[in-house]
Amino acid sequence: MKRWTKGKGWGWVWGAEDEVGNLNEMTDQSRLAALKLVTQGKAYDLGLPYDRNSYKWPGHSPGEIISFRSPAGVMTQKDLEFTTPQGGNTGGTAWHSNAIFMSDNVATQIDGLGHITHGPNNELYNGFKASEWGGDFGLRKADVTTIPPIVARGVMVDVAGLKNVDALPSGYEITREDIEGALRAQNVDVTPGTIVLIRTGTARYWGENGKDHAKLAQHDSSGIGLTAAKWLVEEKGALALGSDTSGLEYVPPKPADSQAVGGSFNPVHVYLLMQQGVHIMEFHNLERLAADRVYEFAYVATTNAIRGTVAGTALRPLALR
Amino acid sequence: MKRWTKGKGWGWVWGAEDEVGNLNEMTDQSRLAALKLVTQGKAYDLGLPYDRNSYKWPGHSPGEIISFRSPAGVMTQKDLEFTTPQGGNTGGTAWHSNAIFMSDNVATQIDGLGHITHGPNNELYNGFKASEWGGDFGLRKADVTTIPPIVARGVMVDVAGLKNVDALPSGYEITREDIEGALRAQNVDVTPGTIVLIRTGTARYWGENGKDHAKLAQHDSSGIGLTAAKWLVEEKGALALGSDTSGLEYVPPKPADSQAVGGSFNPVHVYLLMQQGVHIMEFHNLERLAADRVYEFAYVATTNAIRGTVAGTALRPLALR
Amino acid sequence: MKRWTKGKGWGWVWGAEDEVGNLNEMTDQSRLAALKLVTQGKAYDLGLPYDRNSYKWPGHSPGEIISFRSPAGVMTQKDLEFTTPQGGNTGGTAWHSNAIFMSDNVATQIDGLGHITHGPNNELYNGFKASEWGGDFGLRKADVTTIPPIVARGVMVDVAGLKNVDALPSGYEITREDIEGALRAQNVDVTPGTIVLIRTGTARYWGENGKDHAKLAQHDSSGIGLTAAKWLVEEKGALALGSDTSGLEYVPPKPADSQAVGGSFNPVHVYLLMQQGVHIMEFHNLERLAADRVYEFAYVATTNAIRGTVAGTALRPLALR
Amino acid sequence: MKRWTKGKGWGWVWGAEDEVGNLNEMTDQSRLAALKLVTQGKAYDLGLPYDRNSYKWPGHSPGEIISFRSPAGVMTQKDLEFTTPQGGNTGGTAWHSNAIFMSDNVATQIDGLGHITHGPNNELYNGFKASEWGGDFGLRKADVTTIPPIVARGVMVDVAGLKNVDALPSGYEITREDIEGALRAQNVDVTPGTIVLIRTGTARYWGENGKDHAKLAQHDSSGIGLTAAKWLVEEKGALALGSDTSGLEYVPPKPADSQAVGGSFNPVHVYLLMQQGVHIMEFHNLERLAADRVYEFAYVATTNAIRGTVAGTALRPLALR
Repeated sequence: MKRWTKGKGWGWVWGAEDEVGNLNEMTDQSRLAALKLVTQGKAYDLGLPYDRNSYKWPGHSPGEIISFRSPAGVMTQKDLEFTTPQGGNTGGTAWHSNAIFMSDNVATQIDGLGHITHGPNNELYNGFKASEWGGDFGLRKADVTTIPPIVARGVMVDVAGLKNVDALPSGYEITREDIEGALRAQNVDVTPGTIVLIRTGTARYWGENGKDHAKLAQHDSSGIGLTAAKWLVEEKGALALGSDTSGLEYVPPKPADSQAVGGSFNPVHVYLLMQQGVHIMEFHNLERLAADRVYEFAYVATTNAIRGTVAGTALRPLALR
Repeated sequence: MKRWTKGKGWGWVWGAEDEVGNLNEMTDQSRLAALKLVTQGKAYDLGLPYDRNSYKWPGHSPGEIISFRSPAGVMTQKDLEFTTPQGGNTGGTAWHSNAIFMSDNVATQIDGLGHITHGPNNELYNGFKASEWGGDFGLRKADVTTIPPIVARGVMVDVAGLKNVDALPSGYEITREDIEGALRAQNVDVTPGTIVLIRTGTARYWGENGKDHAKLAQHDSSGIGLTAAKWLVEEKGALALGSDTSGLEYVPPKPADSQAVGGSFNPVHVYLLMQQGVHIMEFHNLERLAADRVYEFAYVATTNAIRGTVAGTALRPLALR
Repeated sequence: MKRWTKGKGWGWVWGAEDEVGNLNEMTDQSRLAALKLVTQGKAYDLGLPYDRNSYKWPGHSPGEIISFRSPAGVMTQKDLEFTTPQGGNTGGTAWHSNAIFMSDNVATQIDGLGHITHGPNNELYNGFKASEWGGDFGLRKADVTTIPPIVARGVMVDVAGLKNVDALPSGYEITREDIEGALRAQNVDVTPGTIVLIRTGTARYWGENGKDHAKLAQHDSSGIGLTAAKWLVEEKGALALGSDTSGLEYVPPKPADSQAVGGSFNPVHVYLLMQQGVHIMEFHNLERLAADRVYEFAYVATTNAIRGTVAGTALRPLALR
Repeated sequence: MKRWTKGKGWGWVWGAEDEVGNLNEMTDQSRLAALKLVTQGKAYDLGLPYDRNSYKWPGHSPGEIISFRSPAGVMTQKDLEFTTPQGGNTGGTAWHSNAIFMSDNVATQIDGLGHITHGPNNELYNGFKASEWGGDFGLRKADVTTIPPIVARGVMVDVAGLKNVDALPSGYEITREDIEGALRAQNVDVTPGTIVLIRTGTARYWGENGKDHAKLAQHDSSGIGLTAAKWLVEEKGALALGSDTSGLEYVPPKPADSQAVGGSFNPVHVYLLMQQGVHIMEFHNLERLAADRVYEFAYVATTNAIRGTVAGTALRPLALR
């Protein structure tokens, strides 16, 4: 690890212009080592399928996938000469396409470092100010196009499995001890540069499209606290933290956690994204990994390449084994 | 290869309910073999960044990335109690998020098998009828959520390099001979199960966001013809065909190519997607591969998990080497 | 009245190409007569304000009003030269504009004749077929741009007032007798060419933005039945029927009403829009008229001029008195 | 007139909380007087029909009218029980509805007083600051829902007719003398409280949907200058100013006009909306009025009731005669 300090983690250590954070640690060597973990050729899809009915945080924009062009519509509309028989299309070729209206923060996500701001000047990671780098068309610093392709060792920590429950209860704070216990039971460790995915069991209720809002909301509030996050980053060198919930951290935070960053509704986000430059993986489907007891793998993910967006959204990261 | 027949390719050979096409050929063994090609740990991002100004086919819906929530807006709007100081947010945590309005057919894409329909009954791959499987919220058969994670051997065929041009001229038809010539010059072959990405050079004009529509449009019309497509699928067993243009095939098609499928404005699409069940990779950025003379690699890509959409859009596939 | 027949109403009597329906009855003379009813110069705004939280029928697309350009965004984005000091804008002129994403069927509406289809061939008014006149970009026959400006005598029928209730109960069917009773109590009559607005009291719960979905849903299901609709059109010559609910008619319909048009979830819509060519006014705010006991007035309304849309939406019709 | 001062006009004279501006001048008496001008019962529709191809200022969000629900889609999708035969819909009732994605500043508009900000603090009319009254979901002061129904005397000033041209040339500044000349030729005057609509002839090129961008852009830059605007407001007491162009004023402004408000790309907007509290009517179709030589009429218009939007958009104001 180039800039990680045990007991301290990372922080704003990559230069004044950096938008990448600790993913700068990835090297050809680390990627190669991660891919060496693949011995069976299995590919686990960690994505949760999204549609207009999917559970999401209520503050986000709604999702609509709307048939934009359809074979019947193309034929009826006749707005493009080349689609008509007279235009040569005697075989009747047509197409489906859709207009997507959606949030950049839904379903399986990777939070970019610019997602969260904090403090009187609304600063994001590395001190970039929202007033300077925001705008009408999304964020102009640390948007998702600055997130490099992620290829790294991944470890799944099955806390729900350790507790022998389908899913952790509402608002449950996953502690350092929970994580250490699960790692011990799984006989795997978090080494510096590892992406850590923590299983609460919530994704088991996603189903076809995440339409059972009540059930999902109930378990979605479980997650790690600030103590566990700090231990993973500062003592273990975790390259990114993730979970099978919409927000990784338990909510609402206890006063001590909230006050640790000066009063916040999501102190773990502030700590990881803004203060440490550590990305957050959300709503990753860990059910198949748990069923197969796959605890160590090569994690491979890329966000969409959409300028201005602050989170990869509706992704399908891979656990390769 | 399980169902490929030399001289014939695939077709509707995977059963009446199949929505996957020839990607059914992928196995643990084939994925493992593909990943074995990675010897250096380099990850080439094949995605082209998209924004509201990006070049796209004019029939698609426009793209807008609109700042939905912003720190200033959250503070002014005060619509969520927990974001206010009284609600405990004394440290002033806020966030950026965006509303995305876009087509499912822009920038770097993987066309799903349901994208194209053909014939008097508007059939897509495997005979599914648009009138039965379309709908108001996107396609209900062969949408992108049915595309499995793609991990396969990839080969880049640098036709622009062979011709020693920056980019192929407008409407140029890439022939079987061009491809054979480039493969010979590169000393690499297409073996059954290979994903073939053909370079026209068009993507070199994409730049930050594809805003030079005139320049891109000029070269974007070059691509393979039906003869080259058939040879790659039927004789060589290509698992998927792609390029650095918006449509893979040269346009407009010559009458013979159009008539070969009964009259069509994009006969190669009809042949590959509908008749053969072979996916198409579009607008892949092959410039860095060409610069580094990387011709063989592990291709890894997943589409977004958005139900109803017919193409992975604004993707960042990887060439791992 | 040019084509109205007592005991029969209108129907498809305006020629094979007609998209206007019984609004063809309006003449200079009828408009002038309607405006003569204005003796005080009072203008009652019948519109209900719409925003992202407003109650609407769940099958419609969501509403988002998103700040698209803002002074802070314009200044930060610097994408337009003329907005910068160097471009001459030393005084700092900027602007607000919004991106609207909404349904064409929300808040205060006028249903166009193409809104509803019925029967095995999905026919709309005058026998136009959806398969021929639909398309990808809205309806191509009887869209709202074919609705002429409406200037006509209006009568408000205060059924909630007659019953001495705040609002009619859930699912209540307003009968011909209810309407006759209210007209008698109000000492006003429906003459041929009159627009009839029937008050259930539901709009009193709309408030700032219609956010009390539960309360609105409770009363929104009251409305007229087929018998009252037929009497108003066929015996009284009503030019249009409206109410202060989202759908004018009581729901769900009793089997006899449903079967009267061959089985339908909204038989009054089928009868008025498709069979008779009579427009429907929905979610009109009649509270101020009721408070001032204004029962007769000049009704003036125009829809937006948006091609393809099937209902004027979020309108502010006027009752001039 | 309650607050108008000759030689000064209005300004911020309606109290610190006012969002209405000089439309406060309208009274029952003034509305009644305006409606008395209607002697023939003719209704002139001043709206220009809008669709996805319509000309608009390039800084605005794109327009898409997308078929959201259609009879074929409803039948195929089967997502709502009551639409199925089993659910009782044996007659096959279905519907068309659309998703509208559009700017609040297109086609026939009324600019609200919050549309334009100016000065170092981005103030709008009456000193409201954008930083305080903006937000994520549109403007929270002086949005269109605060614009009262407009019923007033209207006068059309046919400058193109006076000059005997089809449309005024590109960038032409309409002067006070032009307006006085046209009024003289028309034998009509602007009295205090009159809405003044100035014809350049540009709308004659709108056609079905404003798709001839080049032709429209050419003439759209003609309009009034600051001198004419001031004369109309301060000397004549005009209640609102409008035109048949997208921006009322000629562009780009001469340095003297720009500097008169401290450096601005649209000084007439700053003067009228922000400094005087006078609304602007844009892209009003004055062609039929010109053809019939109708110069004096009752102007009746309401904006849509959409909270947060800053301009009535795609409207159909009426000239009643």
